[in-house]
Amino acid sequence: MLAQTLTAEIIAIGSELLAPDRMDTNSLWLTDKLNGIGIEVRLKTVVGDDDSRLEEAIKDAVKRSKVVITTGGLGPTEDDITRKVAARALNRRLFLDEAVLEEIRARFQSFGVTMPERNSRQAMVIDGAAVLPNPNGTAPGLFLEHDGAAVVLLPGPPKEMRPMFENHVQPRLADKTGNLRVLRRVLRVAGMGESAVDEKIAPIYTRYENPQTTILFNKSEIEIQLTARGRTEADAEALLDKLSEELEERLGHSIFAFRGEKMEEVVGLRLSVGGYTIAVAESCTGGLIAQRLTDVPGSSRYFIEGVVAYSNEAKTRTLGVEPVLLLEHGAVSAAVAKAMADGIRRRADTDFGLSVTGVAGPSGGTEEKPVGLVFIALASEALTEHRKLMLPGDRQLIRWRASQAALDLLRRRLI
Amino acid sequence: MLAQTLTAEIIAIGSELLAPDRMDTNSLWLTDKLNGIGIEVRLKTVVGDDDSRLEEAIKDAVKRSKVVITTGGLGPTEDDITRKVAARALNRRLFLDEAVLEEIRARFQSFGVTMPERNSRQAMVIDGAAVLPNPNGTAPGLFLEHDGAAVVLLPGPPKEMRPMFENHVQPRLADKTGNLRVLRRVLRVAGMGESAVDEKIAPIYTRYENPQTTILFNKSEIEIQLTARGRTEADAEALLDKLSEELEERLGHSIFAFRGEKMEEVVGLRLSVGGYTIAVAESCTGGLIAQRLTDVPGSSRYFIEGVVAYSNEAKTRTLGVEPVLLLEHGAVSAAVAKAMADGIRRRADTDFGLSVTGVAGPSGGTEEKPVGLVFIALASEALTEHRKLMLPGDRQLIRWRASQAALDLLRRRLI
Repeated sequence: MLAQTLTAEIIAIGSELLAPDRMDTNSLWLTDKLNGIGIEVRLKTVVGDDDSRLEEAIKDAVKRSKVVITTGGLGPTEDDITRKVAARALNRRLFLDEAVLEEIRARFQSFGVTMPERNSRQAMVIDGAAVLPNPNGTAPGLFLEHDGAAVVLLPGPPKEMRPMFENHVQPRLADKTGNLRVLRRVLRVAGMGESAVDEKIAPIYTRYENPQTTILFNKSEIEIQLTARGRTEADAEALLDKLSEELEERLGHSIFAFRGEKMEEVVGLRLSVGGYTIAVAESCTGGLIAQRLTDVPGSSRYFIEGVVAYSNEAKTRTLGVEPVLLLEHGAVSAAVAKAMADGIRRRADTDFGLSVTGVAGPSGGTEEKPVGLVFIALASEALTEHRKLMLPGDRQLIRWRASQAALDLLRRRLI
Repeated sequence: MLAQTLTAEIIAIGSELLAPDRMDTNSLWLTDKLNGIGIEVRLKTVVGDDDSRLEEAIKDAVKRSKVVITTGGLGPTEDDITRKVAARALNRRLFLDEAVLEEIRARFQSFGVTMPERNSRQAMVIDGAAVLPNPNGTAPGLFLEHDGAAVVLLPGPPKEMRPMFENHVQPRLADKTGNLRVLRRVLRVAGMGESAVDEKIAPIYTRYENPQTTILFNKSEIEIQLTARGRTEADAEALLDKLSEELEERLGHSIFAFRGEKMEEVVGLRLSVGGYTIAVAESCTGGLIAQRLTDVPGSSRYFIEGVVAYSNEAKTRTLGVEPVLLLEHGAVSAAVAKAMADGIRRRADTDFGLSVTGVAGPSGGTEEKPVGLVFIALASEALTEHRKLMLPGDRQLIRWRASQAALDLLRRRLI
């Protein structure tokens, strides 16, 4: 039997987090880390610098959950109320810890600055709490046990919060869960619809309670998330290996990533390993394929040249597309896609030439060539092939999906 | 005197929202809309499909806040607990509303489908609630007054939630705030640092309590957010106009957008209006400038061609950069940037040629040419000018900042 699941709540503190353009992203990172040691997050709260609401939030959380983590509000100003309010909510004394004060003072001195008086507030400690050191800022964290719950106060800035959690909180919490290990693996699929994927693999994954399987649809990618629980990391890895092998047997090359890699990373690795070079010619994607390929560090080894040929003149001038093709078939056609792929390959003298031409909208569609119609083509010395696609979505989505399909065409050729 | 500020809480419901890679984005949209009618969001909760925690969350919220909005959990499955739990939390009866049931049944019939039995659950209504129609889905919303608070249950999918809020909730809430209007305007600045901006404009904006001013720093853009409150929309607009004129006097052309427009939209509009054409030659940005320019619908009017010349050969072959320049100055140099801009302008026969060459990292930097060194150049028939930049950040940030600086160089030329 695995240890029982612990439940957690996360409280993000700060009025700025209640603005319409700000997210509490700390809780996502913390959720990932907590899930990784078998702790489930059941509730999240965002509260401003608001004494009474925060006090109620902490009181409620401690009653309901075995782990309560707050982020933010540990700074030196009047607005930073977390220490004071948490002490009140837990009905504990708050006192000035001389040792902590000395450390904060020393930190300022190491920068050649005298500690401002207001920072002494950050040396206030809740009775019974362990002080968590903060090498990346002045606000130490606090960890205490209260009525069987672990209450943890962390600073808000990610570069202070994250190492503090990893070094001082995670080990303490892992003790409580009997060092249960939970690992997640993300498989990515291209070229299949969500229901087609589910139909194929449901008979497999429904046989397993551990790992758990979740299927997510995002832009034109399907993500299969596997979550395994084990007594050790190796146990959990073995469970993931077994299930992902079975899924691979069913889905074959439609799975393009087994560890959450991006399509451009997978394609880049295959080009690199094979010692191949690539050049791209884009119309409706407007440089997106070149940008995705060159987003990968080291891509200069295989990416030689890209052309964004928006106008017909550019297609002829730079890619050598015969005007007669444009006249007879139109710019959005299989013939022009193939001529673009051949043209860029010849120009850049690469192993592969990849091209896209299509109607991304919102205007420019006709009955014969509607918005979403896209042709992609891939040329090598031996073979030039193309695909015709009808892509749903708005302009940005059509552009992204066209770039994904083109990269996937290249990936499949490289297998 | 303006009406008193109402306080709101938002509760997002659904276990999927507690995953490490999922955000509750509905609350951001709602916060923006609520702020727009003078209602302040004081607390946000994310809770799973968890009866007792949700009941507590609703009870607490109604005690503390004048407006309580829930999103999600109105679907037809066992997991969708919002109606049932809200009724219990408010101690009100839940009953099957035959008229609502009839509408849901009719909706299914309009698609030629018989309503599945489980969907009758969505016709359950809390005693005293107004039913909010949902033309985009089967789940109607509910609006009720309870102990002086407005309690609103909305569906989770944005395309159902948003129109329901705008058409049926916003007018009801606006009544409560005396139709106070709050408008926000976003000014964007390029080519200046955050503290330089603040130093210049603080003497101005600190004189005003209304509008309120916030300065945000994001990638290489500075956003100045102005929020004005007025009895009417025209009052609020007039306050915004006055302050933004004063800010423009101080910052001049460094402000590139007065209504939150993106740089590529501003540049695109200026090219369009002037009847100019543009072509771009990119090295380290790898197609990002072309992609940003062509992200704007209608960009085919002015964007003619883009070249991503990653290799030296491509710079010579396609852009006509003399090999001797590459040898003497290196690919990352003012001379090559200018030759690239001239080369693409000649090739595409456009009014302007814009180029970037630099070291985006993480590797490839030297002492003489470190990561972050970028040259941009802009060519027209009359003049080719360049800028040397040292950009901080990781690979993606350097690429983005280089693209922004290049577009800004073009924008300033077009003024």
